[in-house]
Amino acid sequence: MPEVLSQTKKLRIVKNNKIIDGKKVAQDIQKELKVEVEAWMKEGHRAPRLIAILVGEDPASKKYVENKMKAAREIGIKSETINLPDTTKESEVIKEINRLNADNSVDGILVQLPVPPHISERNVCNAVDPHKDVDGFHINNIGKLTNNMDTFVPATALGVIELIKRYKVPTFGKNVVVCGRSKNVGLPMALLLHSDAKYECPGYEATVTLCHRHTPPEELAFFARRADIIISATGVVNLIKPDMVKPGACVIDVGITRITTENGKSKLVGDVDFEGVSKVAGLITPVPGGVGPMTVAMLMFNTFKAAKSLTEGNNNKN
Amino acid sequence: MPEVLSQTKKLRIVKNNKIIDGKKVAQDIQKELKVEVEAWMKEGHRAPRLIAILVGEDPASKKYVENKMKAAREIGIKSETINLPDTTKESEVIKEINRLNADNSVDGILVQLPVPPHISERNVCNAVDPHKDVDGFHINNIGKLTNNMDTFVPATALGVIELIKRYKVPTFGKNVVVCGRSKNVGLPMALLLHSDAKYECPGYEATVTLCHRHTPPEELAFFARRADIIISATGVVNLIKPDMVKPGACVIDVGITRITTENGKSKLVGDVDFEGVSKVAGLITPVPGGVGPMTVAMLMFNTFKAAKSLTEGNNNKN
Repeated sequence: MPEVLSQTKKLRIVKNNKIIDGKKVAQDIQKELKVEVEAWMKEGHRAPRLIAILVGEDPASKKYVENKMKAAREIGIKSETINLPDTTKESEVIKEINRLNADNSVDGILVQLPVPPHISERNVCNAVDPHKDVDGFHINNIGKLTNNMDTFVPATALGVIELIKRYKVPTFGKNVVVCGRSKNVGLPMALLLHSDAKYECPGYEATVTLCHRHTPPEELAFFARRADIIISATGVVNLIKPDMVKPGACVIDVGITRITTENGKSKLVGDVDFEGVSKVAGLITPVPGGVGPMTVAMLMFNTFKAAKSLTEGNNNKN
Repeated sequence: MPEVLSQTKKLRIVKNNKIIDGKKVAQDIQKELKVEVEAWMKEGHRAPRLIAILVGEDPASKKYVENKMKAAREIGIKSETINLPDTTKESEVIKEINRLNADNSVDGILVQLPVPPHISERNVCNAVDPHKDVDGFHINNIGKLTNNMDTFVPATALGVIELIKRYKVPTFGKNVVVCGRSKNVGLPMALLLHSDAKYECPGYEATVTLCHRHTPPEELAFFARRADIIISATGVVNLIKPDMVKPGACVIDVGITRITTENGKSKLVGDVDFEGVSKVAGLITPVPGGVGPMTVAMLMFNTFKAAKSLTEGNNNKN
C-alpha cells in the first residue's frame, strides 16, 4: 500500500518540522518542576499542597480534576479533591474555601468551573485568598494581570505563552490574531501578548487583534492572513482554514470539541483545519496533544509558585 | 481676501459636518449632571464631595486639578484640593488617603498623577477605597473593568466611549484601531470596545487591534486603513496621516502635545494630522476641544456615581 506509506511518511515529516508538541513540553515542564520541588523540600520545606473543589458530578469536570490531581502527585505536590454535591449552597462552598484560606498547610485552591447555576462563579472565585488563587481568577489577580504585575496567570494562557517561548516564536513587533475573547483564555492572551516586556509580569510586544463571534468572516480572514501568530480559542470547528493563514505563520489551537466522525466514532478536534493548515503554517499545535496538556503543567507551575511565595512570606497584600 | 474667506468657509463646513465637538458634549453632560445632582439633593442627600490630592508643584498638574475642581463646583459637587509638598513621604500620602477613606462625608478621592518619583503610584492608587476611586485606578477596579463588572471606568476612556455613543458611531462588528497601550487610556479603550454588550459594564462588540510603539509603521498603516474607528492616544505628533484613514472613518485624537510653531508661538496639537485627516474622515475630534473636556466631565460622572453608590449603600465589597 504505497499510498498509505507515503501518507505516513508525509505526516512524519510534518511532525518533525512543524508540530508543536505540547504533550512533550508539558512533560518536560513537569519533570523540571519535580526536580525543583524536591530541591525545595530538601531545604526543609513541606510538600506544596493543592486542593480542588468540585461541585457536582459533571463527568468532564471530574476528568479534568483527576488529570490535575494526578499531575500534582507525580511532581510531589500533595493534592486532594473535595467533592461537594451539586445541591451545595453558595455560602457552603464559600465556607469551605474560607476554611482552606485559613489553613496554612494549603498553598493552592481551585474551584473547578463551571459551578452549578445557583452558585455565582464570580463570588466563588473572589472568595479564594488571592495568594492561593492558582487559577488566577480572583478579581484582584485579574487586575494585576491587566497591569502586568506579578500574579497567577491563568494556566491555559500561560501554557500558550510557554509554547511560544520554548519554540522561540518571535513576538516583538509581530502581528498576533487572537480568536475568542473569553475572560480566562482569549483576553489574558491578548493582555500578555500586546504589552511591554519591561513589566514585572512581562508582555510580549506584539500588535494584537482580538477577534470574536461578531467579527465578520471576511474581516477575520483579513486579519488572520496578516498574522505571524494565530491563536484560536473559540470552540468553532474548522474556523481557521488554510487560505486564512500566512505561509510560515505559527498557529496555536486552544479549541477542543468532541465530534462524531462519518464512521460514528467520537473524536476530539480543535478550531483549526489541521490537515489543511499544517501545509501552510510554519508551526502548529495538534488537538489533542497541543495546548491541553500545557494547562495542567502550568497549573502545577502556579501551585509551586504559591507554595514558595506563601512560605517565604512574599505576600503582597495589594 | 477671497483666499482666506474660502478657507474660513471650508472650515465651517468641516465643522458642521465632521467635527466631534467634545467641548459642547462635555458641557451638555455637566449640565445634565447639575440637574441630576440638584434633584438628588432635593431628596435630602448632602452634596457629593470630591477631594483631590496634589503632591508637588507641577504647573500642568495644578492646572488639571483646578479644571476638575472648577467643573465640580459648577455642577454642585463640593470639591477641595489637598496640596502636599513634593517632599511628602509615601506613608504620609497614604495616611491622608486613609483619613479620607474613613470620612463618610467624602465620596470621591483622586490623587493627581504623576506623583514624585519617591512615591509608588501603584501603592497610592491601591490605598484609595475602591468605592471612592473615581479615577478607576485601584487594582480591584481594573480587574472589574477587565471582567466588564460595574466599576469606575477611567475618565478619558469613558469620555471617548461617550463621544462614540452621542455621535451614534456604530461599533458592533466594526474594526477599531487603538494606538497606544497605556494602562489608563489605550488599554481600557480596547477592553471596553472589544467586549460583549451583555455585561454589567457593557462592551461595544468591535474587533480591536491594539497598536503601540513597536508596531512597525507599515503595519499600523495596514490596520488603520481597515479601521472604521481610529483612536490615537500616543503623544506622537502627526502619527495619523490622511493616507492611513479609510474615507468616512471616525478618528478620535486623545493625544495632547505642546509644540512651538514656526512663528515661535506655543500651540496644543494631537496625534492626528488634523488638516489632512479631516478631509478623509467622516468624524474627527479636534485638539483642543475634543477628548480633553470629556475627561473632566466623566470624572464628574464618576464622582456622582460614587456619591449615589456610597449613600445608597450599594457597596459590593468584592
